[in-house]
Amino acid sequence: MEEILKRVNNVEDLRKLDIKEQEKLAEEIRALIIEIVSKNGGHLASNLGVVELTIALHSVFETPNDSIIWDVGHQTYVHKILTGRKDKMSTLRQLNGISGFPKTSESEFDCFNTGHSSTSISVALGMARANKLENKKEKVIAVIGDGALTGGMAQEALNDAGSSNADITVILNDNEMSISKNVGGITCFLSKLRTKRFYTKTNSKLKMITLKIPIIGKFIVKLAQKIKQGIKQIFIPKMYYEDIGFTYLGPVDGHNIEKLENVLKTSKTIKGPVLIHVVTKKGKGYKFAEENPDRFHSTSSFDIETGLPKKEKKDDYSKIFGKKLIELAKKDEKIVAISAAMIDGTGLNEFKKIFPHRIFDVGIAEQHALGMAAGMAKKGFKPVVPIYSSFYQRAYDQVIHDICIQNLPVVMCVDRAGIVGNDGETHQGIFDMSFFSLIPNITIMAPKNFEELEKMLEFAINLNSPVVIRYPRGGEGEYKFEKCDDINLGKAEVLKSGQDLTIIAIGKMVERAVEVSNLLMKQGINCEVINSRFLKPLDSNIIEASIRKTKNVITIEDGILRGGLGTSVSELINECRIPDVKFKSYGYEDTFVKHGSISELEKLNGLDAENIALNVQILQNQSAL
Amino acid sequence: MEEILKRVNNVEDLRKLDIKEQEKLAEEIRALIIEIVSKNGGHLASNLGVVELTIALHSVFETPNDSIIWDVGHQTYVHKILTGRKDKMSTLRQLNGISGFPKTSESEFDCFNTGHSSTSISVALGMARANKLENKKEKVIAVIGDGALTGGMAQEALNDAGSSNADITVILNDNEMSISKNVGGITCFLSKLRTKRFYTKTNSKLKMITLKIPIIGKFIVKLAQKIKQGIKQIFIPKMYYEDIGFTYLGPVDGHNIEKLENVLKTSKTIKGPVLIHVVTKKGKGYKFAEENPDRFHSTSSFDIETGLPKKEKKDDYSKIFGKKLIELAKKDEKIVAISAAMIDGTGLNEFKKIFPHRIFDVGIAEQHALGMAAGMAKKGFKPVVPIYSSFYQRAYDQVIHDICIQNLPVVMCVDRAGIVGNDGETHQGIFDMSFFSLIPNITIMAPKNFEELEKMLEFAINLNSPVVIRYPRGGEGEYKFEKCDDINLGKAEVLKSGQDLTIIAIGKMVERAVEVSNLLMKQGINCEVINSRFLKPLDSNIIEASIRKTKNVITIEDGILRGGLGTSVSELINECRIPDVKFKSYGYEDTFVKHGSISELEKLNGLDAENIALNVQILQNQSAL
Repeated sequence: MEEILKRVNNVEDLRKLDIKEQEKLAEEIRALIIEIVSKNGGHLASNLGVVELTIALHSVFETPNDSIIWDVGHQTYVHKILTGRKDKMSTLRQLNGISGFPKTSESEFDCFNTGHSSTSISVALGMARANKLENKKEKVIAVIGDGALTGGMAQEALNDAGSSNADITVILNDNEMSISKNVGGITCFLSKLRTKRFYTKTNSKLKMITLKIPIIGKFIVKLAQKIKQGIKQIFIPKMYYEDIGFTYLGPVDGHNIEKLENVLKTSKTIKGPVLIHVVTKKGKGYKFAEENPDRFHSTSSFDIETGLPKKEKKDDYSKIFGKKLIELAKKDEKIVAISAAMIDGTGLNEFKKIFPHRIFDVGIAEQHALGMAAGMAKKGFKPVVPIYSSFYQRAYDQVIHDICIQNLPVVMCVDRAGIVGNDGETHQGIFDMSFFSLIPNITIMAPKNFEELEKMLEFAINLNSPVVIRYPRGGEGEYKFEKCDDINLGKAEVLKSGQDLTIIAIGKMVERAVEVSNLLMKQGINCEVINSRFLKPLDSNIIEASIRKTKNVITIEDGILRGGLGTSVSELINECRIPDVKFKSYGYEDTFVKHGSISELEKLNGLDAENIALNVQILQNQSAL
Repeated sequence: MEEILKRVNNVEDLRKLDIKEQEKLAEEIRALIIEIVSKNGGHLASNLGVVELTIALHSVFETPNDSIIWDVGHQTYVHKILTGRKDKMSTLRQLNGISGFPKTSESEFDCFNTGHSSTSISVALGMARANKLENKKEKVIAVIGDGALTGGMAQEALNDAGSSNADITVILNDNEMSISKNVGGITCFLSKLRTKRFYTKTNSKLKMITLKIPIIGKFIVKLAQKIKQGIKQIFIPKMYYEDIGFTYLGPVDGHNIEKLENVLKTSKTIKGPVLIHVVTKKGKGYKFAEENPDRFHSTSSFDIETGLPKKEKKDDYSKIFGKKLIELAKKDEKIVAISAAMIDGTGLNEFKKIFPHRIFDVGIAEQHALGMAAGMAKKGFKPVVPIYSSFYQRAYDQVIHDICIQNLPVVMCVDRAGIVGNDGETHQGIFDMSFFSLIPNITIMAPKNFEELEKMLEFAINLNSPVVIRYPRGGEGEYKFEKCDDINLGKAEVLKSGQDLTIIAIGKMVERAVEVSNLLMKQGINCEVINSRFLKPLDSNIIEASIRKTKNVITIEDGILRGGLGTSVSELINECRIPDVKFKSYGYEDTFVKHGSISELEKLNGLDAENIALNVQILQNQSAL
């Protein structure tokens, strides 16, 4: 086994192989990826889908001089295996290990960092234009999925690239278009049928026309319904992309290395922008992933034989959110849900089953999602829009311009807020509290546990103005809170009284505050623990009173320090002119946070309870001197 | 004169008119708009282009029950005249007067606020979906220009709308496509030529094919070159939009009220999404605006007879930026400029003439602009990207994800930063300092005058990491600064020593700080005036030393308070544990700022020198008590 992969340590080795050997290599790489992801977790289906494509790309193009930009970047495991990182793949997504995304710091073959969707064509066009200005002949290739192509940024870039004359190759990795061999075989007859009428008529008409094609005959009729989508996807894209300035090649079977290499070689001879339409199958080669690519899009560790997860999946914030939203939606028919291609990830699967007409999946299109939410809110609905924290960055202008200026009641649920762990710096949700908090008319809160999330969601839906609820990846902590007061606008919750130190925390860090308080109690420091609940409006009454009492305050938050809870408390101290206060804020310093487990990253950033408690004691002793 | 307009006070009056009267009304409205804009300034060319379209829309649709969403919204003067605001139009864009954009607070006919580009389809789709859920038959119409359609948000929305079955009508107001009557007449023959071959071949082939069409004959040959663009624009859009799910109507002459009303009536009978392609001419009916629509896109007051501006245009920051960039680009061939459809507005006209291959106008596509800049920077270039402050909100994720994570040397020039005045809340650039400042790896500065902008630009281009320079709309102030130190990273400039009060300001507010200092000097308060220059990194040494000396500090900035200069100084006071400091920050409170002149708005927000000086004295007296 694995005899070819053993020989292939880099792209030079790869380029010595013949097609048969490359095909064998593909199978060996598949096995390796399945093995690694079954242990470390990660993105499986997308990587299995691009094994042959990646082999063909590195065989035909002269990487690393030629540049491959991987859109989103979670499909680069094959790429990493082929570019000198085969032996390090066991450290995938672990602290100080190989990243799950391309990193320029990791290899010269990773020519640009990606993580978010729809960026690759812009980046590739920038590189191609740079090459042109310097008369360099190096090629630039963007590899982008059909999902990512719906993102506005990709559309903007396509429009510009088409009219640019830049030497850019866009590989459209189309894994929605499940063309069977039969359907694939009819592409030749499609070329004879280039009339407008053909593809815009109804299904029945399509059936009739198809019947008249003698070469294909009756056999095809049964497929007519199925292939209608396929026809459109083959026919329209070619015209569309050629019209906007691309040379269109394909569609080509993305699991046939020989065909792939031929079309890639052809593309190298063409001047100007080229689009190659490659058809792949997500999860290819691993039965469970082929059958259920969504489940294996991003997976935790699993058993290879059964495809089942190794750990029982516990409840997480997304699931609790989804459940509560169903309960509320049953009572209030104005509630609707909007998702940007993340129905499953944000816990809306059940909602979709129960209220199919009250949920809108708009695709990878965060800007549009929030703009549309504003339109629905203006008409009296209560749109709830769960989006991951780092992707809310995409809709920033819409939150300001379309929602908050008009004070529209959109409930923005910021999922995966705070540190997310193994996906690394592009996915850490550490900026949202800060960038939302400077927008007028907005309310911002974060729950300490599941129960508080439920109460906050109900509160938010009835607030009648723009509101953010942020909650972390994963589940609630171990600590069982004794109480969960009802939510009142801008009201904090005092969890414990004390007179030596005020600890103010928000969201998942409230548990941390309790831990710190317990540790300090053993040292004779009696803390007052405040669950801020709201970042905006801040409960200045409770907080001011506590600080005036203790003269000693720390804040703990799961986000970048600038513009967050620490900033709010710092400003409060100056505004209220509370004299002689010792203050320190705990959160993420002014730097991006790399990948690793959540607890490792918290420790590294000094946010574990032990470190905070120790730090407090040191400061206490310093000031006692 | 004006006999029809006198009778038309609202849409009910309009709907009683026959076509001839409506045509006469159109001319009267044109005259009124030219008169108002020649006095108040505003958007002229776009409003003159939609006179007939607006009349037709309000005649055919049952506004305000039917909703019209005006993309961008600067083309709504006709709409406002027809919907009860005719007599208030003389207050256009003035404090407490009629806004230059739709405002729901102004009229029930303004069903949604707009200001930024490319939002209308999302909003309209949200409204149409809301109507559908409630079984309401009200129509929703989005009016969007061809320029705005290139914006990613509009593309995301089109994609979603097409597959939605929602009853939404998109009016594509196409004013790029200058189809003459001859060319318009050949649309009928185009319908016979629906073969792929026809429109993708070279010009010579196109010529040959056209020759073979007997009906049109040789006459058309001469037009072939000219009409190629037109053919594509008529032919491809229809196929494209119909394929993605729209019923496509048009193209229709946007200055022919009868034809417009007919096509609008047709659209009302069609279920599902409809796209109506309307061809208009910017500046229609006013010679100078037709000839030079860019100059009359947004204009200050002008002389109607000559079309010339009433005031001589002084140098402004954009122009100084453009000039300096040319000077730098002559010495450094790695400098390139990128614009999002704002070459003129950002002062890049001359640069474009001198370096046509080193400037890239990517269209209304801020996300792509910054992504492409990142690609060029990665390849060793120095991209300079001037974009208005409020539009940088559109590229927030790209600044974080594509530029700052990789620490790429992109120079982000934030034009129209701070209060811009008459365009109002959607255009005030008051958030940029705050939302940029929380991003790691970024440097932020703002110049006090033209000379400092020039020095900062040169500094930024050689910094080799992401950098923001923000500068305001218009010119520098009256005050002549005696000096302008060289720029050093994170170094402030002490403009005046003093011991009673530290005044720290940044950008255009540095002049204000000097004014305040002069006023206070008369009251015996001797101020230390610090030009912060950098918001990030802040010069904590100079600032800390000054505060320790005076124990009394104010900050002045042209932006929202949260997360800006005041926040930085407030945190510094707590971090450095400077005891007994009196501190107050001046800037914009947590609210959106409406339209008015810049000086009026500054006064209203307490930011004029007199008010700040008075406020300081009051606080001094209070603490003396």
